[in-house]
Amino acid sequence: MSLKESRWEELADIKRVLAKRDWFPGTSGNLAIKVDQQPLTFLVTASGKDKTKESNEDFLLVDKDGKPVENTHLKPSAETLLHVEVYNKTNAGCSLHVHTIDNNVISELYGDKGRITFKGQEIIKAYGLWEEDAEFTIPIIHNHAYIPKLAAEFGEYVKEDAGAVLIRNHGITVWGRNALEAKKYLEASEFLFSYHLKLLAYQSIK
Amino acid sequence: MSLKESRWEELADIKRVLAKRDWFPGTSGNLAIKVDQQPLTFLVTASGKDKTKESNEDFLLVDKDGKPVENTHLKPSAETLLHVEVYNKTNAGCSLHVHTIDNNVISELYGDKGRITFKGQEIIKAYGLWEEDAEFTIPIIHNHAYIPKLAAEFGEYVKEDAGAVLIRNHGITVWGRNALEAKKYLEASEFLFSYHLKLLAYQSIK
Amino acid sequence: MSLKESRWEELADIKRVLAKRDWFPGTSGNLAIKVDQQPLTFLVTASGKDKTKESNEDFLLVDKDGKPVENTHLKPSAETLLHVEVYNKTNAGCSLHVHTIDNNVISELYGDKGRITFKGQEIIKAYGLWEEDAEFTIPIIHNHAYIPKLAAEFGEYVKEDAGAVLIRNHGITVWGRNALEAKKYLEASEFLFSYHLKLLAYQSIK
Amino acid sequence: MSLKESRWEELADIKRVLAKRDWFPGTSGNLAIKVDQQPLTFLVTASGKDKTKESNEDFLLVDKDGKPVENTHLKPSAETLLHVEVYNKTNAGCSLHVHTIDNNVISELYGDKGRITFKGQEIIKAYGLWEEDAEFTIPIIHNHAYIPKLAAEFGEYVKEDAGAVLIRNHGITVWGRNALEAKKYLEASEFLFSYHLKLLAYQSIK
Repeated sequence: MSLKESRWEELADIKRVLAKRDWFPGTSGNLAIKVDQQPLTFLVTASGKDKTKESNEDFLLVDKDGKPVENTHLKPSAETLLHVEVYNKTNAGCSLHVHTIDNNVISELYGDKGRITFKGQEIIKAYGLWEEDAEFTIPIIHNHAYIPKLAAEFGEYVKEDAGAVLIRNHGITVWGRNALEAKKYLEASEFLFSYHLKLLAYQSIK
Repeated sequence: MSLKESRWEELADIKRVLAKRDWFPGTSGNLAIKVDQQPLTFLVTASGKDKTKESNEDFLLVDKDGKPVENTHLKPSAETLLHVEVYNKTNAGCSLHVHTIDNNVISELYGDKGRITFKGQEIIKAYGLWEEDAEFTIPIIHNHAYIPKLAAEFGEYVKEDAGAVLIRNHGITVWGRNALEAKKYLEASEFLFSYHLKLLAYQSIK
Repeated sequence: MSLKESRWEELADIKRVLAKRDWFPGTSGNLAIKVDQQPLTFLVTASGKDKTKESNEDFLLVDKDGKPVENTHLKPSAETLLHVEVYNKTNAGCSLHVHTIDNNVISELYGDKGRITFKGQEIIKAYGLWEEDAEFTIPIIHNHAYIPKLAAEFGEYVKEDAGAVLIRNHGITVWGRNALEAKKYLEASEFLFSYHLKLLAYQSIK
Repeated sequence: MSLKESRWEELADIKRVLAKRDWFPGTSGNLAIKVDQQPLTFLVTASGKDKTKESNEDFLLVDKDGKPVENTHLKPSAETLLHVEVYNKTNAGCSLHVHTIDNNVISELYGDKGRITFKGQEIIKAYGLWEEDAEFTIPIIHNHAYIPKLAAEFGEYVKEDAGAVLIRNHGITVWGRNALEAKKYLEASEFLFSYHLKLLAYQSIK
């Protein structure tokens, strides 16, 4: 199996698991995984597909500018430029973007503050933070309709090899050194969003 | 594979995915897909089936009046007349009707207003609206027990080749140029309903 | 396939679908399907099994008193006497008992009233009621720890060939003329419980 | 099939079912099953795996101190010491630890009290308590970052062959005489948490 094929399998596996959770409503969401570093190429989801289905046209290979490196009728996801930011600025190997109800609600409730900070929750260890009072902050950015502008603002928060950014009323983008780490960041973030919201509701009625 | 067979497969695939989400409680819901335009024929779900099961009697072919075009013991869904409105008035290729908790709650909360409007949410792009402040309005109609009357009122809102109508305390009907677009409209609408409800709850306690 | 085998398959299919919804927490729940009328025999779930698994020991055949009619090491579900009430008093062909969060919450919120009535909801048609303002009432009984006493009180509400009874802080038992109808009653009831609860929450904050 | 292989299958089956419920967010959670009593050995989940996947490296065999008994590159779960407490102090055969939204919310809401008690709920029978007014109390302990300290405090509550302990803002650990009982305790506890929370919300608005 070539490197591209093995990366394809890793990304297809993540797509399958997230699709079962209905995390790609209305063909939303996009996923990417790095194949080569020099020159940079990565696989990214093709635009407009129903991600509950699987085919050999689910992903296509693009370059450091997000342009297809092979002759294809497929179009890269409209938000490929955000993945470009990740691979050009860090050593990340995988990046995932999904819309969920809870990440959208959090992004709106804390959108004016521009960030949400989590603390005192075991699952924070998923971010590689093992101290008892570790904190993890996720920035929340404006959802610019013009993708290059959105990518530029997103890129300001892309500094580490793993991280997470919320886009207001839109969704979350996470990235990590490899597929496992990116998925771990995503699941930990979604857990924290859901936990935070549910706790907030009960703290208000106790 | 004939056109009818290939349309059957498309509709069976949607039925399978929606059934996994439990979007057909109590044998509710009905689905349709156009097969021919001249004369008009479409496949529609047979009445009274448990949609978590699959068989070669799941759908039957009906004409522009919703009557079976083949000799069959199957009865078309009781609400076939709503699908008839869609195919007679537009170029839509697929129409879907489902009952969910959230589409019912929205239909009742905003039923007196007769509509609900969404704005400032990324998933609105699923309706083909790409501007930053795009709005999408879903009308809410009364749930007439007499189906021809329900179909007539529903038909007043069937003008475009893709759209969505809520029936109060009943469910949603969406349609689109093809199966992918109809499913996209459905998922985007359900996402907006759930998002709107959850945000409303937290805005009330903050 | 014998009648017993074909009934077994029908019940196994329901068990599989409900298990996927996690409607059998902690080995709870029990299911039954009639095999013969004269003398009465029915299949009922064996006691204490994890219903996410499938085996040829999932069900056993019992008589009109709920006693095994074959030599077996299996014990019928502890609540077999409730199914006995159904088959002795009506022409029902299938009866289902499950614990869900929402049926338990409804049973407690309306337990002192002894009943809950639903009206003006499309899914009420699943009970065979087609008028626009049809009502459906589900009685709520006390959860007697002594099963013969529970069965006796339950039996007071078993008059029709299809119906539903809530047991307070315990669960729901539904029955119908056949497997399809019993499952339809169950799903319609769960839909109404969830819908009622969610609507109640939003009516309180509007 | 050797005893180790058959225990492996039992634990793999539980892992598969719980993974479908998304009860292992961000690679969290760990599972164990006893293989031998004299000397004590048990299988425990390997550290850092995505539990939606299955492989022959999912579990490894460890001794009474939680150290691998075979030459392996795998590391036992970081929280193996909690399972060590269970098998050294009781005759339990299986122990399970998972993070869910509801067990975390309960652990925080009742964390200052140090316990939560359930009463008057049918599902309490899953704990082997059959009286009408049976109570079941689950202690809630502090989430010490230093695992030996966490295990020591956890161990204070490990007295019976089956039981449950909540770790604040972290998750639940349950154990039982065998895999079926441990899973039954887990599911009954999660049901009680979800039921308690939902009922609380509605009692506050009635």
